[in-house]
Amino acid sequence: METNTSSKFAAEFFGTLVLVLMGCGSAVIAGANGTTGVGLLGIAFAFGLSVVAMAYAIGHISGCHINPAISIGMVVAGRMKASEAVIYIIAQLLGALAGAGILLLIASGKDGYDIAVNGLGQNGYAASSPAHYNLQAGFIAETVFTFIFLFVIFGSTSTKNIHGGFAGISIGLSLVLIHIVGIPVTGVSVNPARSIGPGLLVGGAAISQLWLFIVAPILGSILCAIVWRYMLERK
Amino acid sequence: METNTSSKFAAEFFGTLVLVLMGCGSAVIAGANGTTGVGLLGIAFAFGLSVVAMAYAIGHISGCHINPAISIGMVVAGRMKASEAVIYIIAQLLGALAGAGILLLIASGKDGYDIAVNGLGQNGYAASSPAHYNLQAGFIAETVFTFIFLFVIFGSTSTKNIHGGFAGISIGLSLVLIHIVGIPVTGVSVNPARSIGPGLLVGGAAISQLWLFIVAPILGSILCAIVWRYMLERK
Amino acid sequence: METNTSSKFAAEFFGTLVLVLMGCGSAVIAGANGTTGVGLLGIAFAFGLSVVAMAYAIGHISGCHINPAISIGMVVAGRMKASEAVIYIIAQLLGALAGAGILLLIASGKDGYDIAVNGLGQNGYAASSPAHYNLQAGFIAETVFTFIFLFVIFGSTSTKNIHGGFAGISIGLSLVLIHIVGIPVTGVSVNPARSIGPGLLVGGAAISQLWLFIVAPILGSILCAIVWRYMLERK
Amino acid sequence: METNTSSKFAAEFFGTLVLVLMGCGSAVIAGANGTTGVGLLGIAFAFGLSVVAMAYAIGHISGCHINPAISIGMVVAGRMKASEAVIYIIAQLLGALAGAGILLLIASGKDGYDIAVNGLGQNGYAASSPAHYNLQAGFIAETVFTFIFLFVIFGSTSTKNIHGGFAGISIGLSLVLIHIVGIPVTGVSVNPARSIGPGLLVGGAAISQLWLFIVAPILGSILCAIVWRYMLERK
Repeated sequence: METNTSSKFAAEFFGTLVLVLMGCGSAVIAGANGTTGVGLLGIAFAFGLSVVAMAYAIGHISGCHINPAISIGMVVAGRMKASEAVIYIIAQLLGALAGAGILLLIASGKDGYDIAVNGLGQNGYAASSPAHYNLQAGFIAETVFTFIFLFVIFGSTSTKNIHGGFAGISIGLSLVLIHIVGIPVTGVSVNPARSIGPGLLVGGAAISQLWLFIVAPILGSILCAIVWRYMLERK
Repeated sequence: METNTSSKFAAEFFGTLVLVLMGCGSAVIAGANGTTGVGLLGIAFAFGLSVVAMAYAIGHISGCHINPAISIGMVVAGRMKASEAVIYIIAQLLGALAGAGILLLIASGKDGYDIAVNGLGQNGYAASSPAHYNLQAGFIAETVFTFIFLFVIFGSTSTKNIHGGFAGISIGLSLVLIHIVGIPVTGVSVNPARSIGPGLLVGGAAISQLWLFIVAPILGSILCAIVWRYMLERK
Repeated sequence: METNTSSKFAAEFFGTLVLVLMGCGSAVIAGANGTTGVGLLGIAFAFGLSVVAMAYAIGHISGCHINPAISIGMVVAGRMKASEAVIYIIAQLLGALAGAGILLLIASGKDGYDIAVNGLGQNGYAASSPAHYNLQAGFIAETVFTFIFLFVIFGSTSTKNIHGGFAGISIGLSLVLIHIVGIPVTGVSVNPARSIGPGLLVGGAAISQLWLFIVAPILGSILCAIVWRYMLERK
Repeated sequence: METNTSSKFAAEFFGTLVLVLMGCGSAVIAGANGTTGVGLLGIAFAFGLSVVAMAYAIGHISGCHINPAISIGMVVAGRMKASEAVIYIIAQLLGALAGAGILLLIASGKDGYDIAVNGLGQNGYAASSPAHYNLQAGFIAETVFTFIFLFVIFGSTSTKNIHGGFAGISIGLSLVLIHIVGIPVTGVSVNPARSIGPGLLVGGAAISQLWLFIVAPILGSILCAIVWRYMLERK
């Protein structure tokens, strides 16, 4: 692996680690109750601000994907080689696992924490949905939300956009937005790595339901790449 | 329709879709209660961050109006042709309908959701006002708030403003601001498309009261275009 | 009055109107309770985002002071003529009154609103302090908070600062910050116009206590202008 | 002391004063309850927005470290002389003490305030942790969070990053993020000065536990400087 690739690998690894540790950590440590904890709004900001922070920290190194659905969308949009995307996705998955592991380590430092009860901020549908939304709603939501997320990414980072410096803000805040709306439905993934990391450690339904949080985000990403190419910025 | 116009049409369609789906979705899915849901502040951020996200995603394509009151204000201010505004407004109305439709699809995935009871985040006054503000207060509020919204738009995007890159932030955050203040009065429209989309699907008072959310925002927009032209940036 | 001055006058008038209407409006209309209203955090964002919005809307016209303490500080810092500051302050006071008036008009549209009970978001100390902080604490807080506010303004808009475009964000968010901390003490003024507008309409203690919200902010502003000049950016 | 150094000293003194007064002040004055106070989310914004505000106010003067762990990390990264870091750290410690002192002065203006009961927003672990996280969790959290904070700082201010103007936003918002997640664990330090200032005034466990909030942040900072140098931006 040459220097440049190893820097990108490290950037994607640490970036995804931060996203999972801090996003999921806000739910596990700080709590979804708005009176005693940070509330749903606080969790939404945790996920989105992780992206704002990482975008300006590693954007100049790897582009700050920290999400396999983004790397795949970039391949479909013709902005990235498939071979490089594979390396990115490996780094993202390892980073997500590391982030979930550190979260477990910290969370275990509180008496009464039980991973089987308190979880690690994993995603879920039906009985595992925070507000018991069914599979169909979860699938539509994850597909549509990832479409919207990629829509902001393609537009904000377009070479035709002269305000590219703001991309980290608009992309990060769009993730805040998606979490404000979607946490009750699935806990919000729009990112297979973010679901796989905590899911593997928690086990059970968090693993058997992983397929949705892999398929739907990738579907939304591919749809958006096509729509963007043929409807928004035709070549 | 030439390529350029069809890109703008698509941009305005998807932009308004996102605004309605995510703004209204935050109220319907995530809830106005600050302890168990995202609260009024979360809903306010959802509407405003939708605009921040779309401004940097499609601003370079269509200018990101996603609001008929803005397109009309731009015509009055001499910044847009009336014929183009008509195309924009059609795209905005279709996008708003599509956004409300997707929201209904997701919301229906939760047991017990009833559009007649839970609604789609539609606007209203008097008995339909969230805190029972009367018609007069609703009309004044919508007119004044749209005036303020357009005031920020005209100033932030003025050719005399050297910090034009920040317009997406200031305009989006001004919509957060307007929602922080105004949700109890009418739920906040300042955008006829945002009211028409959910209103048509919900029916009843949400349709019979639509006139206010068409007339007041357009009035506020026209007043601001005149004030801006004769008092702020005389030519 | 020449054209240029009248544009500045209009800018300061409308800017202060928006600050008072929306800042105080968030407290009166949307409420300080975090479960049913926007909470203290929502009110803090309302005041600060008003400044972010206005900074990018009218910054290129008048500099967006919308606060007599800022205009006076600018005179002390040698950045503005006293004669121009007088015109600015007149516009700010009229704008604050207009903003408070529009707020009263909207608030009155709700059954049970009573200005003597619900107020207009006026400032106060001792018995009129939201959490009953005494006069001394109120005076120190208003002086120190205004010092901090001007500190951010002088630094963010310094000619030696190459990131001047961000001034609207840093100044506005510093006002969010000041309100997050200070609402329980006095409701936070740091701006004589913001206190005078609602105070004159509410009457009683809101008028008899106005002196503090005129003296302390001006004192904090002058102290900061001196500190900045002799300790931060010596000439 | 030459002029330039004294300006930097003043900048670091006032910057740290603001961070401690406003960050800790949000907890002491405005409260951690989300219904009646600003909640954990409000406190998180107070700490982070203090950094956003100071970054654009004094960044062009001193670089806005306002944190000994940052100054030490900069020395390890080869971006600062150790002798200058010593001067910075003295200014930071004095500023933190001054900020805590002013906070005590204001807080004492409310009947019933008792420093032994209400504190000054000091940090703690085990019995002094807000949610009773143990020493190990506190140490890991402070080390990891400081690592993340420095990671954002090194990346956002890298000479290879063409969007350096956004550093104040990304660094400040990353501190919001860290507080959203970590307040229940230790109250969040990631900054020895921020712990020492309130700790010295409060006494007791706030002093005997200070070692952790000095050692862990410095450890996290040094680790990040090494990781950044050898894995992210090799030379």
